[in-house]
Amino acid sequence: MESATVDVFDINCPSRAVMEHLSSRWGVLIQIMLLREGTMRFSELRRAIGGVSEKMLAQTLQTLERDGIVDRFVHPVIPPHVDYSLTELGEQAARAVNTLFDLIAGRWTDFEQAQDAYDKRKGEK
Amino acid sequence: MESATVDVFDINCPSRAVMEHLSSRWGVLIQIMLLREGTMRFSELRRAIGGVSEKMLAQTLQTLERDGIVDRFVHPVIPPHVDYSLTELGEQAARAVNTLFDLIAGRWTDFEQAQDAYDKRKGEK
Repeated sequence: MESATVDVFDINCPSRAVMEHLSSRWGVLIQIMLLREGTMRFSELRRAIGGVSEKMLAQTLQTLERDGIVDRFVHPVIPPHVDYSLTELGEQAARAVNTLFDLIAGRWTDFEQAQDAYDKRKGEK
Repeated sequence: MESATVDVFDINCPSRAVMEHLSSRWGVLIQIMLLREGTMRFSELRRAIGGVSEKMLAQTLQTLERDGIVDRFVHPVIPPHVDYSLTELGEQAARAVNTLFDLIAGRWTDFEQAQDAYDKRKGEK
């Protein structure tokens, strides 16, 4: 498929699915986490991301691995030791996601003010 | 709340919710759409985004309005005419999201190759 024909708005275009994986709540957090910390073990990721279940984390990592975002390395030891890291493509994606994260942190007061103003408007009706 | 104390990994931090709204599949598409096209009506957005239900679109727009991402303007006419556009904060967010979208479109071949390679590995096991 040529880049020119990729249409993220088309529900049947496979690029739409990739965008959904990358921008899902867990996909986003995993990318930021792996970029920030370098290689991480499953258990470290689980501890670092509040509210993610073991099953959900495993599924998200599998999806991101299939999309070429995350590398999975199984050390041949007992007990099993599995490392996750970002691929080069994953680092590019994480950088884009990070920009969004920095915006939220950097302009948090604006978000809060907007929410307060909205709630006040709704309360007055 | 100071910017320094915003922690998107903490499930109890309100910034986490904003990140989830912004990076939800519909949130992302709405932002890109509104940025690309300027002001849009509800029905135009609905047509433009494949697979979104009326209820889901309305809910997402409300959430983005509360977060200060989307402006909603109700024209005082009959039948009702409601326009949506991005706020200044929303344009910043959309620009970050757009970077991710450009990455997917621009490197689509890499995503496809990663998926094929993954499926082949799994098939061989």
